[in-house]
Amino acid sequence: MPLTKRTLKELAQLIDAEILGDEMCSIEGIGTLQAALPGQLSFLSNKKYRKHLHTTRASAVILSPEDAQTCATNALIVKDPYFAYAKIAALFSKEPSLPKGIHPSVIIGLNCHIADSARIGPYTVIGDNVVIGKNTQIDAGCHIGNDCKLGDNCRLWPKVTLYYDVQLGHRAIIHSGVVIGSDGFGIAPYQGKWQKVPQLGGVRIGNDVEIGANTTIDRGAIDHTVIEDSVKLDNQIQIAHNVYIGAYTAIAGCVGVAGSATIGKHCLIGGASNINGHITITDGVIVTGMSMVTNSIKEPGIYSSGTGVMENRNWQKNVVRFRQLDKIARQLNCLEEELHDHIKNGESNND
Amino acid sequence: MPLTKRTLKELAQLIDAEILGDEMCSIEGIGTLQAALPGQLSFLSNKKYRKHLHTTRASAVILSPEDAQTCATNALIVKDPYFAYAKIAALFSKEPSLPKGIHPSVIIGLNCHIADSARIGPYTVIGDNVVIGKNTQIDAGCHIGNDCKLGDNCRLWPKVTLYYDVQLGHRAIIHSGVVIGSDGFGIAPYQGKWQKVPQLGGVRIGNDVEIGANTTIDRGAIDHTVIEDSVKLDNQIQIAHNVYIGAYTAIAGCVGVAGSATIGKHCLIGGASNINGHITITDGVIVTGMSMVTNSIKEPGIYSSGTGVMENRNWQKNVVRFRQLDKIARQLNCLEEELHDHIKNGESNND
Amino acid sequence: MPLTKRTLKELAQLIDAEILGDEMCSIEGIGTLQAALPGQLSFLSNKKYRKHLHTTRASAVILSPEDAQTCATNALIVKDPYFAYAKIAALFSKEPSLPKGIHPSVIIGLNCHIADSARIGPYTVIGDNVVIGKNTQIDAGCHIGNDCKLGDNCRLWPKVTLYYDVQLGHRAIIHSGVVIGSDGFGIAPYQGKWQKVPQLGGVRIGNDVEIGANTTIDRGAIDHTVIEDSVKLDNQIQIAHNVYIGAYTAIAGCVGVAGSATIGKHCLIGGASNINGHITITDGVIVTGMSMVTNSIKEPGIYSSGTGVMENRNWQKNVVRFRQLDKIARQLNCLEEELHDHIKNGESNND
Repeated sequence: MPLTKRTLKELAQLIDAEILGDEMCSIEGIGTLQAALPGQLSFLSNKKYRKHLHTTRASAVILSPEDAQTCATNALIVKDPYFAYAKIAALFSKEPSLPKGIHPSVIIGLNCHIADSARIGPYTVIGDNVVIGKNTQIDAGCHIGNDCKLGDNCRLWPKVTLYYDVQLGHRAIIHSGVVIGSDGFGIAPYQGKWQKVPQLGGVRIGNDVEIGANTTIDRGAIDHTVIEDSVKLDNQIQIAHNVYIGAYTAIAGCVGVAGSATIGKHCLIGGASNINGHITITDGVIVTGMSMVTNSIKEPGIYSSGTGVMENRNWQKNVVRFRQLDKIARQLNCLEEELHDHIKNGESNND
Repeated sequence: MPLTKRTLKELAQLIDAEILGDEMCSIEGIGTLQAALPGQLSFLSNKKYRKHLHTTRASAVILSPEDAQTCATNALIVKDPYFAYAKIAALFSKEPSLPKGIHPSVIIGLNCHIADSARIGPYTVIGDNVVIGKNTQIDAGCHIGNDCKLGDNCRLWPKVTLYYDVQLGHRAIIHSGVVIGSDGFGIAPYQGKWQKVPQLGGVRIGNDVEIGANTTIDRGAIDHTVIEDSVKLDNQIQIAHNVYIGAYTAIAGCVGVAGSATIGKHCLIGGASNINGHITITDGVIVTGMSMVTNSIKEPGIYSSGTGVMENRNWQKNVVRFRQLDKIARQLNCLEEELHDHIKNGESNND
Repeated sequence: MPLTKRTLKELAQLIDAEILGDEMCSIEGIGTLQAALPGQLSFLSNKKYRKHLHTTRASAVILSPEDAQTCATNALIVKDPYFAYAKIAALFSKEPSLPKGIHPSVIIGLNCHIADSARIGPYTVIGDNVVIGKNTQIDAGCHIGNDCKLGDNCRLWPKVTLYYDVQLGHRAIIHSGVVIGSDGFGIAPYQGKWQKVPQLGGVRIGNDVEIGANTTIDRGAIDHTVIEDSVKLDNQIQIAHNVYIGAYTAIAGCVGVAGSATIGKHCLIGGASNINGHITITDGVIVTGMSMVTNSIKEPGIYSSGTGVMENRNWQKNVVRFRQLDKIARQLNCLEEELHDHIKNGESNND
């Protein structure tokens, strides 16, 4: 892979930055403020790393105007350093592309429409009536079921599984081990036994969606499971049947969303939280990590649950008290009443 | 795929329903009460959707006798609409079958017994001494290790992995990404280091078991890990070594069951709950979602733990108090004693 | 597979044990104390199984000196029976090895260095510039991306995915469905939208690491994600970008570790716990299962959080009180003040 090299001037144009220092300085890589070597570019976004500005060996740093004066090296000044960094980092990524074309080992069903510019890796299996858009890359060992439709410029990493009737919009990034369109957990109890409820719906995923490794998204029971545009899902998330996730919502790793839950637009769901079935979370809600969302959330805001770790011995005592909490509260109310009666009686005795 | 079409009369016979309305009405699909189009069948099971009975465009609705009079369209009257729906929905499923036979790319080890009617998809790898029953379908990219035994009419979706010495009963449905028979987490500490404990047992899975996408079931340490008949496991469940799960128990997504835990028959375990190792849950227990089951449960009933989300500012205050809970309880007891002493002293002073 | 047979004498030499009984006794397998048959070896480590020592049908038992007298059969006496058992169990494992060599269906990129003694199963795909050490076994359907480096004597089970620039030390055991090197969850908010932050770092994994089924480890954002020597990870663990895990730490199933968290050496993290991002856990910390670790832990010790299940009706009452906990605590403080004022006033009235 050829080395990427850019002058500060070229980089500044890309992110519309003001340059402080040597605009001909050559940048060959990226490093953190602490670890960057000469020739590398760094950035300062999280203020707790500001102290490293004085000592960094980076050849240049992307930073906001307020930090321009404290920077000991060349600077690219922008309003939003993290966003600017993200755009520049793409230049230095070593992420490999698939070779052009379709590997001869790929198995393709009947009546598929695959763009000439699509690339498909070895041992991938594609069903019937599949549509694959321009420049979409499907890596080795994927499975694309019947009637699936993938937009343009998607990237499926190795071993992604799409069951039948799953649609992805443009620019989807789907990481390895993701399963989309597996049966929802539909079982009807009948006389102490279970009858499987066939899952007739599909999955509809909008544009610019990223889905992390080993995340699972079940197909709908009757209607579809829906993930809107620009939803970002981290690893090992479980999305049950008929969930609806609104545009621009980001969900961190290990979250579970139960059946028919609706999550609004521009929400942030912290890692390992769980969302109950059949509830609605409105737009703009932030749920902190490991929360237990049992009821609908109707107002935007920050919501939390759980109790953080404490030293085990102390925790054991508190947990015992938690089991008595209702009793404790009632004891307190009784005591309050008793005291007030006593004071009142005392006063009446004094009358 | 040819369009499925049935008259109401045909459908009624299938589910033993009474018909209210036009028995020759033709049904070509399934829809929810809200979204169904003319020509589609719907059902009413969850009473909160009853309001849609008046406005549904469905050509017929499966419902219970009590709702028969409020239905504005044709009705199929049964005792248990959800169960009846499940049976009819199977007619309208577009779930594809594998093509007949064994794909030429399948690799098969020595001394296997594979039924003539079994179907195996591309790039699946099968070890030695494997037995595969009648009409069992193993989709693309699966791995069946040595000495595995699969019953009749099983369906393995793409990319299921069975390690060696794993047995599935009849009619198993195993979704993509499932791993069965991986090593249990056995490590013996020795002088500050770890010694791997070889996992010698296998996995034994009964009849009519369904296992959701990316669920993992470890092999036993010495004896087997056992999943009994008609157990239903959702996605991303982790079953550790030597767990025993009794018949008809259903477990929702993201649950973890630690080593040597025993779960009884007919239990329901809510999503994201975790079951401690070496404990026993008796038959007929319901555990609500995100519960932390640290001790054995000896009586049937409903069990819960955790505290649901609240507005973050309020939560922060309560969490601080939780850390003081034992102190608070002791403070309360002291106060109670103090008050009672005071009252008693007052009374004795008044004597 | 030929039957493994050893005399007690041979086994005793392997684990440096004292023999009590017939040293020529022949052992052909392993069983638990309860289930062992004649000809099998068992062991006693967990004292709650001591009662089975009197009735076991095992031909010999590995135990510690204190149990030697109560054992009704032959005994192998060692200080640490579980560790000794682990060493002997390896003799009786039926774990299959891959056939020698590289299966002809394996696809290998340019400029790879693969040891002659390495074994690679069918349909595995290997990128460019990959190094694979001596005796390493890579099972069917794995994916090894560009620039990966695997040490000697590793074992990758079927369908492991390594993205590009991932390094494994010697003797790694990686179970099926594991994904290493997927993109960290890096998204920069910009005017209500998300900009993907390219993940430029790799993953560096030390020697003697075991990683359980369907666990995911993301690549670093700039620097690498690092797993040190002898770390043991169970199934379905999520390790985010730039996490650092110190040597000898063991993490049970379903744990999530958020971005840039640092976990020290010799820690034990209980199942389904979650570790917040950007925090540090010092060496020698034990976190019990399902804990929520939101802040750094600076002292070794045992830490816990959460509240275990209770009967649902009781739980509902306590949960309501938890929401009022701060109010309850303040009510208690007021009451205390009121009582003390009252008593003081009473005393002053009595003055």
